[in-house]
Amino acid sequence: MGRIFKERTSVDEALRLFLRNISPFKHTEEVPLQACAGRVLAEAVVSGRDVPHYRRAAMDGYAVRASDTPGASPANPVLLQLSDSMEEGTTMWIHTGAALPEEADAVVMVEDTITVRDMVEIRVQVYPGRNVGQVGEDIKRKDLIFEEGHLLRPCDAAVLASIGLKRVKVFRKPVVAIIPTGDELVSRETAGEVPPPGMVLETNGLMNALYVERWGGVFRCTGIVPDRPESIREAVETNLDADMILISGGTSVGKRDHAPEVVESLGKLLVHGVGIIPGKPTALGIIDKTPVVCLPGYPVAGLVALYFFVRPGIRKLGSIPEVPEIVLRKRLTAKISSKIGYVNFIRVVFEGDRVRPIMGAGAGVLSSVAKADGYVLVPENVEGYEEGQEVEVFLIE
Amino acid sequence: MGRIFKERTSVDEALRLFLRNISPFKHTEEVPLQACAGRVLAEAVVSGRDVPHYRRAAMDGYAVRASDTPGASPANPVLLQLSDSMEEGTTMWIHTGAALPEEADAVVMVEDTITVRDMVEIRVQVYPGRNVGQVGEDIKRKDLIFEEGHLLRPCDAAVLASIGLKRVKVFRKPVVAIIPTGDELVSRETAGEVPPPGMVLETNGLMNALYVERWGGVFRCTGIVPDRPESIREAVETNLDADMILISGGTSVGKRDHAPEVVESLGKLLVHGVGIIPGKPTALGIIDKTPVVCLPGYPVAGLVALYFFVRPGIRKLGSIPEVPEIVLRKRLTAKISSKIGYVNFIRVVFEGDRVRPIMGAGAGVLSSVAKADGYVLVPENVEGYEEGQEVEVFLIE
Repeated sequence: MGRIFKERTSVDEALRLFLRNISPFKHTEEVPLQACAGRVLAEAVVSGRDVPHYRRAAMDGYAVRASDTPGASPANPVLLQLSDSMEEGTTMWIHTGAALPEEADAVVMVEDTITVRDMVEIRVQVYPGRNVGQVGEDIKRKDLIFEEGHLLRPCDAAVLASIGLKRVKVFRKPVVAIIPTGDELVSRETAGEVPPPGMVLETNGLMNALYVERWGGVFRCTGIVPDRPESIREAVETNLDADMILISGGTSVGKRDHAPEVVESLGKLLVHGVGIIPGKPTALGIIDKTPVVCLPGYPVAGLVALYFFVRPGIRKLGSIPEVPEIVLRKRLTAKISSKIGYVNFIRVVFEGDRVRPIMGAGAGVLSSVAKADGYVLVPENVEGYEEGQEVEVFLIE
Repeated sequence: MGRIFKERTSVDEALRLFLRNISPFKHTEEVPLQACAGRVLAEAVVSGRDVPHYRRAAMDGYAVRASDTPGASPANPVLLQLSDSMEEGTTMWIHTGAALPEEADAVVMVEDTITVRDMVEIRVQVYPGRNVGQVGEDIKRKDLIFEEGHLLRPCDAAVLASIGLKRVKVFRKPVVAIIPTGDELVSRETAGEVPPPGMVLETNGLMNALYVERWGGVFRCTGIVPDRPESIREAVETNLDADMILISGGTSVGKRDHAPEVVESLGKLLVHGVGIIPGKPTALGIIDKTPVVCLPGYPVAGLVALYFFVRPGIRKLGSIPEVPEIVLRKRLTAKISSKIGYVNFIRVVFEGDRVRPIMGAGAGVLSSVAKADGYVLVPENVEGYEEGQEVEVFLIE
């Protein structure tokens, strides 16, 4: 008791402080192309090859020497001898993608020809290079294909394959250690039936783990740690080799809230108390070079801390480019009241073209998130929104 | 030669025909909660438990009998004896989330008390239920938590865990067989150096596989199949146990294009020739109950067919809800010309606040996709867009 939040930091300022203390790491690994989608290139890719590596026909048709087609037209066609080799006055059938014979320099589209036995009527004049894909037309040797930091998509994998690569160097995924704390917690793995009164199943660890995975990290989860500073300290210290540490629970200012003080004792507590509801008891710190997020134990508050701090933190660590968020514009079916001085995270449900705010469900009511399709953020200086007002809705992913 | 597309079907009509022939399958599997994110529930989830399963304190403070606090205020506090058991005139310390003693019916927030030795001054009157989370406040036994068909998010996994579930029944992922065809293709796996002229590395299969995976399917890839109807037929027949078949290449109307005719000979060819550029030679069919997409061999055209037909097809098969696409509104740095009668798929690159269209790169130039951040769709009846015009930009995922 008597303890209070040191300060209340705005969401933006808290994020700025947190990210300023995070450096993208440089650890890399090689992955086969089959596993490269969603990964981030750790080095620029320069092609070692020309693609195509030969002159290819861009159309089905007849390979010709352009000099054999002067003035050719439907009214005045040129007759060429169909042959197996190219020389003056001969032509060869060629299909799209095939290698152009060395002596040929153009392709006449099949639509511009009439074939009668072994003679081909060429009904259009072509110039050298017509319907021919030149060597390196797609990619030239030494072309820069991707810069370092490029987020690889499936189509990019095909480009990398086309220049003969089988593996590619990417940044390793950030490793995030998850430490669930709380004397009241019972492991889901061992619990048989309903836990005794006062005890609850540990579920935040699972939620944290699956979000870490979704955002491009790898998680490792410790066992449940009791609400004792020594125990939390030990769990943190043994996980300082991770790229980020999440401590779930024990972040508020009650008798059993020790996470922020442990962070302060081992490193630097940057923020304790954020101007967002739910999510106020979130704390952010840094120990050695490892960023630490203390997530409120109330699951909705924890979710908010995940979205606002863990997601951008993982991205910065792993140099993962931000993908624009899906934002919908919808009208409200009901008024939203919001507390001035705080960003308010309001869960909403789609109802036809509109969204209905879920009001009154506390930060402990996880099922309110299960019911919600998205959320609306009410800025610090706004008292709320009126019924019918159009608002930006972010999807809960 | 002489063969032509049977018809040209508009993109919308082609998709309608294709989806009408696809039925969501009912195959299910059970997965542990750790693996449920991104999966689709195959049955409604009804809670077998109350959450919380006991009356819990919603605040740190003192458990009281509300009847002991009549008229309490800062000026006129009620004094209660701090105790280890609840009876008339006593109170007990309780922390957030702890079980309320049976005899208590309210919690007085610590902020509304002053403790002097073993006496607690209660400075506010409370009513029964104040600061108490009732049994089932979050979730009641028999509550419907999720409907069948719900796409599970990490926060949903935590809700499922909180009602004591360890596994959940989801729809199996659609299995998509990928058949790369083409006499000119060389396997990436076996190829050492640059293939001989006229031969190219097979890369479409990889692109198809990674998109199938991204969209919630499971792929299996056959070896490269030569451009012979018998060979393609055999590959298709041995993969009719898949939920969908993709044949890559051989979809046009040239001498070596056999994929659509094979589909027609084994089942029903629904569409051959789609009103989209690139992507025109796409064919769609159904064999027994297995949908088949013939993807153009030109990689950009193949990508278009993936986006417009394979993605919605996988979603329908696996009952995967559609997630709203990320659409940005940007101005063009240059004019776009478009062919009337076709939807034109125009690759674009972000340039500051604007997008630059990549014009002139053919459907065979995969590197143009690697360079592109997104695409603009010009409808059939629009000739193009002017420089500076604001357009909708879809991200290339």
